[in-house]
Amino acid sequence: MILPFTIQARSGPARLGRIATPHGAVETPAFMPCGTAGSVKAVPQDILEELGAQIVLANTYHLYLRPGHELIRGLGGLHKFMSWERALLTDSGGFQVFSLSELRKITEDGVSFRSHLDGTSHLFTPERSMEIQIALGADIIMAFDECTEHPAERSRARESMEITLRWAQRSKDYFESHKHEVPWAGEAKFAGRAQELFGIVQGGMHAELRRESAERSVAMDFAGYAIGGLSVGEPREETQEMIARTLEGLPQDKPRYVMGVGYPDEIARYAAMGVDMMDCVLPTRAARHGLLFTSEGRLNIKNLRFAQDQSPPDPKCGCKVCARYSRAYLRHLFVSGEPLAAALNTMHNLWFYLDTMRSVRHAIKLGDRSGTLSDTVSLA
Amino acid sequence: MILPFTIQARSGPARLGRIATPHGAVETPAFMPCGTAGSVKAVPQDILEELGAQIVLANTYHLYLRPGHELIRGLGGLHKFMSWERALLTDSGGFQVFSLSELRKITEDGVSFRSHLDGTSHLFTPERSMEIQIALGADIIMAFDECTEHPAERSRARESMEITLRWAQRSKDYFESHKHEVPWAGEAKFAGRAQELFGIVQGGMHAELRRESAERSVAMDFAGYAIGGLSVGEPREETQEMIARTLEGLPQDKPRYVMGVGYPDEIARYAAMGVDMMDCVLPTRAARHGLLFTSEGRLNIKNLRFAQDQSPPDPKCGCKVCARYSRAYLRHLFVSGEPLAAALNTMHNLWFYLDTMRSVRHAIKLGDRSGTLSDTVSLA
Repeated sequence: MILPFTIQARSGPARLGRIATPHGAVETPAFMPCGTAGSVKAVPQDILEELGAQIVLANTYHLYLRPGHELIRGLGGLHKFMSWERALLTDSGGFQVFSLSELRKITEDGVSFRSHLDGTSHLFTPERSMEIQIALGADIIMAFDECTEHPAERSRARESMEITLRWAQRSKDYFESHKHEVPWAGEAKFAGRAQELFGIVQGGMHAELRRESAERSVAMDFAGYAIGGLSVGEPREETQEMIARTLEGLPQDKPRYVMGVGYPDEIARYAAMGVDMMDCVLPTRAARHGLLFTSEGRLNIKNLRFAQDQSPPDPKCGCKVCARYSRAYLRHLFVSGEPLAAALNTMHNLWFYLDTMRSVRHAIKLGDRSGTLSDTVSLA
Repeated sequence: MILPFTIQARSGPARLGRIATPHGAVETPAFMPCGTAGSVKAVPQDILEELGAQIVLANTYHLYLRPGHELIRGLGGLHKFMSWERALLTDSGGFQVFSLSELRKITEDGVSFRSHLDGTSHLFTPERSMEIQIALGADIIMAFDECTEHPAERSRARESMEITLRWAQRSKDYFESHKHEVPWAGEAKFAGRAQELFGIVQGGMHAELRRESAERSVAMDFAGYAIGGLSVGEPREETQEMIARTLEGLPQDKPRYVMGVGYPDEIARYAAMGVDMMDCVLPTRAARHGLLFTSEGRLNIKNLRFAQDQSPPDPKCGCKVCARYSRAYLRHLFVSGEPLAAALNTMHNLWFYLDTMRSVRHAIKLGDRSGTLSDTVSLA
């Protein structure tokens, strides 16, 4: 059974859709909060549900190192382990190996690296990444890719794209013959359902490579397609250009996922361009550094000017934090190092991101009569 | 108007009561979570309400240093500042000056000290403590006392007790002539209501000094009486003995509050002895170090034996944490340094403490037919 993805409305290139994962529906365009080590930092799962998160992303690299994928498999998979009954997506581990681990060595076989936690040696191959992700049991898993560094010359970007394509085929081959091993395979309520594998388009900042990577990935027939290797230091215009060129090469009837983006205006813009899924650490990580996203722009809560400010973080926001607490209190919590600061800031930022996507979905449904989407795109 | 305190049932020396504070009722015996700097660490206010906390303790020393009592007064008082509409109690600042600050110097006038935050010099006197506590605006505030060090010879304990009694009178004098300055004084819903001041009994581990301190405090006529200077390193039996001797000298018709205690079995025992209020950092602080209080005893969640334990932290517990998460997950969060660990552990521990008091209140109401209270006391 393929991953059911239905498109319910369109407005220009933007699509209002619904991905029916084994663990519930995900309305698209969707923003996925990052639950790196099996927890969206500082936020309990019932609050995530209240905030309206329908899917959470977890990191294969982190969970493989701690507590270990075999432990999680033994406890019934990641959904059960973290007590999250809605949808999950895991990344391939490739990006974290590049950004966090030490002494990386890339060969045709895969990537050997040392753990950032204890220095132990490990090897990720496409097959190993699949094995780990099947053990974790997310609803959507990602092919093992090489995230091309930036900047990269055309020849280097092609080399990286080619290895990503070979690894994509190996990922798919392993996945197809092992996906029945997912921890929840035997449960009656998941009868006929399976994990689904997405391919990842690379190609650096070279439009023709992006296009080629997309077409050759599509030829392998994945359940959905991600655009990786963006937001790695390039200008925003280039990110947008690469997304636009890649989308041209991707099928209309499969979900399209841009990895690791972005600011609120960016996720709205990419959704307006036809992207269905996005994830980013920004709302959660920035929250822990006291940066709030609001309808009035970004707000650094530790600023002295908020010390006596009795207004809510965002006067136009409908979240529980804005309904109850003042900027003055949030500033006090942050400068005092109170653990509640991270929790409240994160809840607000996630609401802002998830609500941005709710607005985008609403605008698509109405055929963008309000001009929300077209304004978003023309701002670029 | 005096603080309304009604006793609804008795079982031996134990009392089931109700303190009608300006900010709502507090059922006694009550456990008060510590909200040191205006936040019960890692727990949002709506969760505190769900847990059943009816009163929270905040620390004058911390709030005076940061964000400052004048700032809080300007924002309408601590209830508004932290968005907590239920009852609050502030301590006098005396204990924290002794335990946290540097370069203390005690004179008849008061205590000069340096801030543990930035080394700045400050002076707390009974009048200053009252001024700060009136600005913060808690429902119940505490006389400025000297917490006698342990061990203390009889002559030293008497000297400390005598200065505490003189400071108590100065606290009361200042309070009576300034209590109308509380930030919420002008609000219609608080018409006729005021802050209330509790005295503090000292006397070290000398029963006759405790008795004398109690009687001379009672002669000053406070709204309630605290027993301070306990749980400072003495054996449990001595704590219990001092509480018992002090209670004999306190009136039946006023709330009695033992400061800074204790373990779950201790708070149940002291309640059974006739104590009405208690506070302790233990459930919150221990939670942040991975120590959970359960019906099966204390549980160090970081222990390897919980790595694959799918049972809830406490199988007999009715809290949201035990309803949703496993020991394995809580262990993973803790060893991974996830901020959610502190939040979930604290929620559970607070529930356990507050539920212990609910059980004690229920037992008093039933006349201890189940033997809960008598068992508790005889365990000592």
